[in-house]
Amino acid sequence: MSKLKILQAQMPVSADKEANLSAAERACRAAVSSGADLAALPEMFCCPYDTVNFPVYAEGEDGPVLSRCSALARDYGIYLSAGSVPERGEDGAVYNTAYVFDREGRRIARHRKAHLFDIDIKGGQAFRESDTLTAGNSVTTFDTEFGVLGLCVCYDFRFPEMGRLMAAEGARLILVPAAFNPSTGPAHWELMFRAQSMFNQIFTVGTAPALDPPGSYRSWGHSIVVDPWGTVLAQMGTEEGYQTVEFDLTETDSVRRQLPLLAHRRTDLYTLKENSR
Amino acid sequence: MSKLKILQAQMPVSADKEANLSAAERACRAAVSSGADLAALPEMFCCPYDTVNFPVYAEGEDGPVLSRCSALARDYGIYLSAGSVPERGEDGAVYNTAYVFDREGRRIARHRKAHLFDIDIKGGQAFRESDTLTAGNSVTTFDTEFGVLGLCVCYDFRFPEMGRLMAAEGARLILVPAAFNPSTGPAHWELMFRAQSMFNQIFTVGTAPALDPPGSYRSWGHSIVVDPWGTVLAQMGTEEGYQTVEFDLTETDSVRRQLPLLAHRRTDLYTLKENSR
Repeated sequence: MSKLKILQAQMPVSADKEANLSAAERACRAAVSSGADLAALPEMFCCPYDTVNFPVYAEGEDGPVLSRCSALARDYGIYLSAGSVPERGEDGAVYNTAYVFDREGRRIARHRKAHLFDIDIKGGQAFRESDTLTAGNSVTTFDTEFGVLGLCVCYDFRFPEMGRLMAAEGARLILVPAAFNPSTGPAHWELMFRAQSMFNQIFTVGTAPALDPPGSYRSWGHSIVVDPWGTVLAQMGTEEGYQTVEFDLTETDSVRRQLPLLAHRRTDLYTLKENSR
Repeated sequence: MSKLKILQAQMPVSADKEANLSAAERACRAAVSSGADLAALPEMFCCPYDTVNFPVYAEGEDGPVLSRCSALARDYGIYLSAGSVPERGEDGAVYNTAYVFDREGRRIARHRKAHLFDIDIKGGQAFRESDTLTAGNSVTTFDTEFGVLGLCVCYDFRFPEMGRLMAAEGARLILVPAAFNPSTGPAHWELMFRAQSMFNQIFTVGTAPALDPPGSYRSWGHSIVVDPWGTVLAQMGTEEGYQTVEFDLTETDSVRRQLPLLAHRRTDLYTLKENSR
C-alpha cells in the first residue's frame, strides 16, 4: 500500500476531557466517512495547553484517555495518530507524549517530546514547558502497512536533526502533532514543514488545535500537509474543522531519484547519528 | 564591528574572462560608492556554468583571476566574496571553489564545493558537475572584523548539516555563491535560504548570476539576504543589477536569546560533527 488518505482534526481543546474525547471520536467517524486510513489529532488534544494543567491531566498508559484512543482506532478500523497527551511515566514524571494506534487498536508508536518548548519572544509568546514536563530521549519511527513513518511533537521539528534522523531510518512521512502561536506561527510554521519536507524529501503532516476557545495559549492552527518536493498540499486557517488529503508515498522515491539529496549527503565529511544507535 | 553593509552583484557571466573581471571591478567600485564593506559575486562568475568549460577555464591559485580578485579587494579596501571559480588544484583536479579576500587583499577563506550537483529533474534541469569536477572535503568558516562568517557553494546549502556545522563553529552569517535554475529556483531557492536562516538563526546571503545572457544553464538569479528570524531582507529578480543591504550581526544574538534553538539542541540524544574535528 502506498496510497494514504488522512484526515486531520483541527479541534478546539476544552478543559473537559470527556468533551475532547468525544471530539476525537467525531473525527474518527468523519475519517471513516471520507474513506481515510488515518485520523490525526493535535498536540495536547485532551488538555488545555498550559503548564499547570499537564500534571493535573496526566494519566498512565492504562488510563482512560489512551484506552479510549485504542478503542476508537479498533472500532473504526483506522490508524489513529492520537495527537499528544500529558503522560504520567512509571517514574512519576510527566511527558508530552504522542501515540499512534493501528486498525486493531494496538499501540504501535510512542514519542515523548524530546525538545521542551521554553521560549520568551520579545512582545510575544513566552512559555516554559520544562516547568512541569520532562523530556523524552528518542527519535521515533515505526512500521505500518504504508511503510515506515516518523513521529515527533511540535518543537522537536524545529531541529533539522530530527527530520534527518527519521528520514535516515526510512520514514517517508512524519506525523507532527503541534501547536504554534500567533508570534511564531506566521513566521515559521509553514516554513518549518516545507523545509523539513524539502531537505529530507519526505511528506510532513502537522496537526494543530483550532484557535478557539481562546485559552492562555493561543494556537495558530493552520494544520498542514507538505509533499516531498516542499509543496503545500493543504493548509487550514485557524478555525475548527477537518482537512482530508490523499497522496502516494512513492512520490518520495520519485523525488529522490531526480534530486538525490539523501544519497548525496557527504557522510564521509560529517556524521549525524542518534547516540543510542 | 557588528554592522555590515554588503553589495551583491547579480552579474551576467560571459565566455570572456576579462569581461567578467571588468564586471567584478565595477561591482567593487559600486560597493565603495554605496559605503558597502563587502562585495559578493556569484558562483562561477568568470566561467559560463557548463561542465565542459570548467577544465578549460580552470586556473591555479596564482592564476590571473584570483590575483586580480586580491588586487580588487586591496585597491578598493573592501572584503570581496569572489563568488566561485574553477580551480585547478595542485593535484591537477578541478574544483568549484569559493574565495574571500579581506580589505588588504589577503585570501582569508577558500571553500571547495563539497556536494557536487548531479541532478535530473523530470521535464526540467539535468546537470552533472561530477563529469569534470572533484568535490572538496571541508566545512568552512573564517574570522573577520565582523566576527566569524561561513562559506559554501550552492548545492552545499541544500544539506542542513552544512548550515548547522557552520553555525556551531560560531558563524553568524553564511555567504553562498550559487546558481539555481528555472526548475529548482521557484520551488526551493528562497525556501532553502529561509530554512537555513530559521533553523540556525543566522544571516544567509545567496548571490547568483543574472539570467542573461542565456547559456546552456539558465540561472534563476534572485540574489537574496535573509535574517536570523527567517525573514527575507532583500531579493532581486532575474535581471542584472546590484542589491545593497545593511544589517546588524548582533541580531543573531537577540533571536537566539528569545528562542534558544541552538542551546536547545539535544546533543546528548544525537551528534552532528565534522569528521575531521
